[in-house]
Amino acid sequence: MKEILYVILDQWADWEPAYLSTAVKTFGNNLYINRTVSLTSDPVESIGGFRVTPDYEINSIPENYEALILVGGMSWRNKEAELIKPLVQNCFKSGKILGGICDATFFLASTGVLNGVKHTGNGLNSLKPLEIYTGENNYIEKQAVNDKNVITANGSAPLEFAREILISLDITEENEINEWYKFNKIGFYKSDII
Amino acid sequence: MKEILYVILDQWADWEPAYLSTAVKTFGNNLYINRTVSLTSDPVESIGGFRVTPDYEINSIPENYEALILVGGMSWRNKEAELIKPLVQNCFKSGKILGGICDATFFLASTGVLNGVKHTGNGLNSLKPLEIYTGENNYIEKQAVNDKNVITANGSAPLEFAREILISLDITEENEINEWYKFNKIGFYKSDII
Repeated sequence: MKEILYVILDQWADWEPAYLSTAVKTFGNNLYINRTVSLTSDPVESIGGFRVTPDYEINSIPENYEALILVGGMSWRNKEAELIKPLVQNCFKSGKILGGICDATFFLASTGVLNGVKHTGNGLNSLKPLEIYTGENNYIEKQAVNDKNVITANGSAPLEFAREILISLDITEENEINEWYKFNKIGFYKSDII
Repeated sequence: MKEILYVILDQWADWEPAYLSTAVKTFGNNLYINRTVSLTSDPVESIGGFRVTPDYEINSIPENYEALILVGGMSWRNKEAELIKPLVQNCFKSGKILGGICDATFFLASTGVLNGVKHTGNGLNSLKPLEIYTGENNYIEKQAVNDKNVITANGSAPLEFAREILISLDITEENEINEWYKFNKIGFYKSDII
């Protein structure tokens, strides 16, 4: 089974991994499996108050995984999040799929991995204060950006984030991924605002 | 604290409670708290593979709660789901807020509570085979329907479901709820399809 790792920290954002993880289950045909990761094996509470027991703590992660997904939330600027940095840098160096959404893009920038790839985030101004960050010219104002297997998105883009990662995983035909995206973005019935 | 109860069963749908629960946290001003409920106190795995330990098992639910939300998923047609029926019927009789999304609307219909209120679901044809269901003329083809504190939605409508429940909770100004909805529906940047 190809493992997709989701890093969740205290007060992780419920809506951000939800579309990706369920689409991986739907399209993965029992070849892909989702696994949650955190700093320890203790339950991790989401913003919405859902307490998730991670499958792996940071030191028990398998070497062979398919993608590393950093789920946004309220803890990426905490000192202890730095324990995730080696994992991120190894993933990036290996060329594996690396995703970050919402404030996890700030964390990705703080490791230096965004400097050389096109990317987005929760606004360029949030990244500029980082001394290590020199990627200003690679910043793109778009829901999600996919460059060299690094996928970034702002916090209002869980569907666009998922779409780009599903395409990078080559989990099914791109056409099928786009149909899935469209159905969930618009909804079965059109909303009053779109 | 006013408690919002989320009933999750095995293979619950990750994206369906995510917007509501986080908005309750954001707008709730420490007056509202989200609590997960399941048949037992054992962890309950989502479709995406996130293992959530419920706050309450079915027999330990407090009498004074504010809303009962049935999260869609793959287990609402199982025999053991019937243990939830008395809770649903009591909630309905008391006039408290009762929500169901995706296949949980099938379950709501199977308790009889949808017969006398306007509602929607994952298609009228999925409800018709239920002998107890006589609500055909109350079925509305819409992302989400809110009538007499009963809120129903199809599985592609987590945002519309959340909006209606937030309005029923009167958790903040309706205008603020609509702005929140619009931001999350469209996204910070417009997508290529809307």
